[in-house]
Amino acid sequence: MVARMVDLRSDTVTKPSDAMRAAMAAAEVDDDVLGADPTAQRFEAEMAATMGKEAALFVPSGTMSNLIAVLVHCDVRGSEVILGDSSHIHVYENGGISTIGGVHPKTVRNNPDGTMDIDEIVAAIRRTDGALSFLYPTTRLICLENTHANRGGKCLTVEYTDKVGEIAKNRGLKLHIDGARIFNASVALGVPVDRLVKATDSVSVCLSKGLGAPVGSVLLGSKAFIDKAKFLRKTLGGGMRQIGVLCAAAYVAVRDNVGKLADDHRKAKVLAEGLKKIKQLTVDSSSVETNMVFFDIVDSRISPDKLCQVLEKRNNVLAMPAGSKR
Amino acid sequence: MVARMVDLRSDTVTKPSDAMRAAMAAAEVDDDVLGADPTAQRFEAEMAATMGKEAALFVPSGTMSNLIAVLVHCDVRGSEVILGDSSHIHVYENGGISTIGGVHPKTVRNNPDGTMDIDEIVAAIRRTDGALSFLYPTTRLICLENTHANRGGKCLTVEYTDKVGEIAKNRGLKLHIDGARIFNASVALGVPVDRLVKATDSVSVCLSKGLGAPVGSVLLGSKAFIDKAKFLRKTLGGGMRQIGVLCAAAYVAVRDNVGKLADDHRKAKVLAEGLKKIKQLTVDSSSVETNMVFFDIVDSRISPDKLCQVLEKRNNVLAMPAGSKR
Amino acid sequence: MVARMVDLRSDTVTKPSDAMRAAMAAAEVDDDVLGADPTAQRFEAEMAATMGKEAALFVPSGTMSNLIAVLVHCDVRGSEVILGDSSHIHVYENGGISTIGGVHPKTVRNNPDGTMDIDEIVAAIRRTDGALSFLYPTTRLICLENTHANRGGKCLTVEYTDKVGEIAKNRGLKLHIDGARIFNASVALGVPVDRLVKATDSVSVCLSKGLGAPVGSVLLGSKAFIDKAKFLRKTLGGGMRQIGVLCAAAYVAVRDNVGKLADDHRKAKVLAEGLKKIKQLTVDSSSVETNMVFFDIVDSRISPDKLCQVLEKRNNVLAMPAGSKR
Amino acid sequence: MVARMVDLRSDTVTKPSDAMRAAMAAAEVDDDVLGADPTAQRFEAEMAATMGKEAALFVPSGTMSNLIAVLVHCDVRGSEVILGDSSHIHVYENGGISTIGGVHPKTVRNNPDGTMDIDEIVAAIRRTDGALSFLYPTTRLICLENTHANRGGKCLTVEYTDKVGEIAKNRGLKLHIDGARIFNASVALGVPVDRLVKATDSVSVCLSKGLGAPVGSVLLGSKAFIDKAKFLRKTLGGGMRQIGVLCAAAYVAVRDNVGKLADDHRKAKVLAEGLKKIKQLTVDSSSVETNMVFFDIVDSRISPDKLCQVLEKRNNVLAMPAGSKR
Repeated sequence: MVARMVDLRSDTVTKPSDAMRAAMAAAEVDDDVLGADPTAQRFEAEMAATMGKEAALFVPSGTMSNLIAVLVHCDVRGSEVILGDSSHIHVYENGGISTIGGVHPKTVRNNPDGTMDIDEIVAAIRRTDGALSFLYPTTRLICLENTHANRGGKCLTVEYTDKVGEIAKNRGLKLHIDGARIFNASVALGVPVDRLVKATDSVSVCLSKGLGAPVGSVLLGSKAFIDKAKFLRKTLGGGMRQIGVLCAAAYVAVRDNVGKLADDHRKAKVLAEGLKKIKQLTVDSSSVETNMVFFDIVDSRISPDKLCQVLEKRNNVLAMPAGSKR
Repeated sequence: MVARMVDLRSDTVTKPSDAMRAAMAAAEVDDDVLGADPTAQRFEAEMAATMGKEAALFVPSGTMSNLIAVLVHCDVRGSEVILGDSSHIHVYENGGISTIGGVHPKTVRNNPDGTMDIDEIVAAIRRTDGALSFLYPTTRLICLENTHANRGGKCLTVEYTDKVGEIAKNRGLKLHIDGARIFNASVALGVPVDRLVKATDSVSVCLSKGLGAPVGSVLLGSKAFIDKAKFLRKTLGGGMRQIGVLCAAAYVAVRDNVGKLADDHRKAKVLAEGLKKIKQLTVDSSSVETNMVFFDIVDSRISPDKLCQVLEKRNNVLAMPAGSKR
Repeated sequence: MVARMVDLRSDTVTKPSDAMRAAMAAAEVDDDVLGADPTAQRFEAEMAATMGKEAALFVPSGTMSNLIAVLVHCDVRGSEVILGDSSHIHVYENGGISTIGGVHPKTVRNNPDGTMDIDEIVAAIRRTDGALSFLYPTTRLICLENTHANRGGKCLTVEYTDKVGEIAKNRGLKLHIDGARIFNASVALGVPVDRLVKATDSVSVCLSKGLGAPVGSVLLGSKAFIDKAKFLRKTLGGGMRQIGVLCAAAYVAVRDNVGKLADDHRKAKVLAEGLKKIKQLTVDSSSVETNMVFFDIVDSRISPDKLCQVLEKRNNVLAMPAGSKR
Repeated sequence: MVARMVDLRSDTVTKPSDAMRAAMAAAEVDDDVLGADPTAQRFEAEMAATMGKEAALFVPSGTMSNLIAVLVHCDVRGSEVILGDSSHIHVYENGGISTIGGVHPKTVRNNPDGTMDIDEIVAAIRRTDGALSFLYPTTRLICLENTHANRGGKCLTVEYTDKVGEIAKNRGLKLHIDGARIFNASVALGVPVDRLVKATDSVSVCLSKGLGAPVGSVLLGSKAFIDKAKFLRKTLGGGMRQIGVLCAAAYVAVRDNVGKLADDHRKAKVLAEGLKKIKQLTVDSSSVETNMVFFDIVDSRISPDKLCQVLEKRNNVLAMPAGSKR
């Protein structure tokens, strides 16, 4: 008997279903760099409708999606973006917004629930008047993340997002959501996904995480925003040819898998409850809102690296360390 | 009877074959961002062997491949790259090496055969000694293009490439080839592709042009170079998840289609000979070395835009304008 | 009788003394861009000796001095710098390290005494090993600020600086001190200035703040560091011609005014003690370590802007607001 | 008897006159970073009036003046600038517009008289319409240089400048002139300096070259342009404190020395005529329009480096090599 491998490393390891593979094999395609791929056009139009935005753009990754969003909103030299100090953009994307894009980050502390305090966001907005305003970069963008990866997949509510959107609007700033797992938030909160991002100027959605498509993310916003995004996608090298094969799989992923996310969340909760019974670990099962389970190892003799190795060898379970004890 | 459409716009419009689609549907995959996709690893290893380089990296596009190469070779602020004034990198890639990468281009005139004069290359290398050297950026890279898109698909010979490689080596510079169509050059010159790029530090090869894969390019170089390229691919947002589906198609493209390029070249020649007989056009059929045919419209009443429209409507032939008379 | 104006806005408003003006008028000069100005060379050599560094470079401003330091230490694309969230570089220099230099900042909270917690500095250093290291920029630099402007001119001790220097050394990082007011720290702590910066790889010192020179800062470090700094000074446009006139004044400033800083500090203390007696204000006189006095207005009817206007009109005293109540 | 040294290296080695030194010593000053230096304000207002522009800004160097101009006109990411392939900005300023500013240069060949062919300028402007426009950066600026340093100080006429200005205007581009030696052009052509730059959006003028001030350049343009320039000057580190001392000297330089430029030009002509008589040299005296004399050494046994050494030792004459035979 061959043991079945259980892969709990990350939702990025999901593999394409047979339906996705069939869709790839059958997809109608043309050169998307010349704007001619019909499957890509259909998929982008449907995603725009689903998310309640004017336009959408298929891009190779969530990192590029976020990078393009920040660079389009901050297209003028001397821009600053306000974002969480534990946000994926700040921590896990190679600092590309600065090192490639020349945008200066102003971080605000992320609370355990993934929010940033409204007061601190407001305080982080640079003055544009006054004697010393020439000393400051210009704040042009606020970024939120929903669900928040570094906060265990916590969801931002509609109320919170709307509030930040209102601040942005009143101060002439843009609001971007890194919505890599926005469908998880929508399902967990029971709020339609378009309502959840209504206050935003742009959203990035990952197709190859919980939704299980092989490759890709979608960036959404106004038509003017997406036109600029196309130019930048080309500049970064994200313009690809017959992407209908990828969009066809992504279409199936959205169609078939959004409905299954609730079940993923239930399983994550069950896993967390089970882990609670192991005395060498601490896990706050009440904090598991979506599809992520993090736990801390109490026993100082066990390192996360070691534990992952043992799990793989003995139990055919793949997991991933997330810190020196986590 | 339905007329068959003949698409002559660009070799980028090639569509995946049934064999490629089947390969995509069957591909073994895993998360390539975590370095775990077996199909990607096999494909990259085979491409490295084919091209005679230590390592290879699958990237979303030729533009990203070139961008990464320039940025890795010019990783220190204050770098300058020598490249052709008609090169794809300088003309058609949004100026990304400067606008995203902060690298200063020093252009040298491209001859009708796609070469740059050796003397002019040498003269373009900045002095690193002398009283005024602090006024100059540091030359770190020379870029060639083979075949040369803006010169009608002309091939650079082994001798020329070796000569430039020697200059680069003697002056402590790197040599990159934009080899989007390097297999066309190899076939047309009857020279093994690895020999053709032996003098280079890096090569970029497109899979979705004449080779017909749906998506992707490969960047090749030393192991150390590719390690840095991986970091930069991630930064730019070119790190993708289950890319085995794309690599499987690319593998078939290389296996099945390199052998067909000679036939493409023959057809291009036939087309050029035929166009010569039309008196409103001028075409230099002797200049058709690979798979590109450009012609000039002599009749001032006909614009390229108009001609392409008419060709599409009456003849089911797709073509693309390439200048005000071309 | 004409009332004498008392200017308490900032130590940047200090005006050149008669001795400085005389020195400017008499200075021996030549073209410093060609490295030929003898007064500049003498001044730089003396500053290097004073600060205990191999070499020095005169630059137009403290902002350029810090910018050059960060860019030289982080000369490779993809670099990150650790610095205080209230530091002058992060808050008051237009985000130039990112917007001009493409360096990604990782901020650590500044304590009331201007330090950052050692633990937090260590935690902010990016991993260079492990499965996810390709997701991170490379930490290359730590920046301290002594005295700390946004913390009321607090001094960093030798012990603290040495400790951070040790961490930097052990982790292969560089340490830069924004020492705009390092002479104030030296005087207040009673520690020779060269000892205070012994653990650093570079220091920036302002000449036109408390020292009273009309223009300029000095950047100090190893000979190799300063050679790179010269190139970058030229790139940024900070290479100037007959700067002997400015260096002559700066020489007098350092010679005559370092000894007077203790008196400045005493006066600041006296001012703070006096302000304590005004019941509409709160001021923590024990926190006045050097030449800065900040106070908060308790009376909600009085704004800092308004108070400064009244002080100027009625009392011939110039002051500057530093926040909504400060 | 002490021989008097004659320094012919460059007009950048000019030393401040007694009148300038006296003006420096007496200058009324305040903190220009806070916008409060009265001498700077007067000088900038006068320069604006002289050059026929709305506003002016004193900056540390011509390199910074040009850099700021290019970066302000190209403030949006993805910009391209058209400039001469022998222009000072392209050749001698460290590639800062790309390496620091992220602006992509599109070079056009400089003719022997310093012009670029109008046709080639027009051809270099990127298309903003058409199917492939997303492949191109956006042309935003044309730069001219008057007089042209690398073309022996040749003057651009009013007619030529106006013509390029008209093209720029019609295509929605900006026109900047690197007018480091624009007063030399004005004097040589007998055209008022404001008329000479009437068609431009910005001009950079050097004070420390032929005009003899110790330090500084002036950047001129519209009020809105200069407001943006102030921000960028601060970002680059060019904001200086009591610059009245430098502006006072610059004021004297403009007042006293513009009138003497005609005499400089006459002397350069005499020198060229004299050099013509030396048979080991070739010099085209008719090409000497302003204050530069370049000559080629015919005798292959003499290198420029060697000749300069001998001139200094035997004749107390300082000169500077400008090429392998020049």
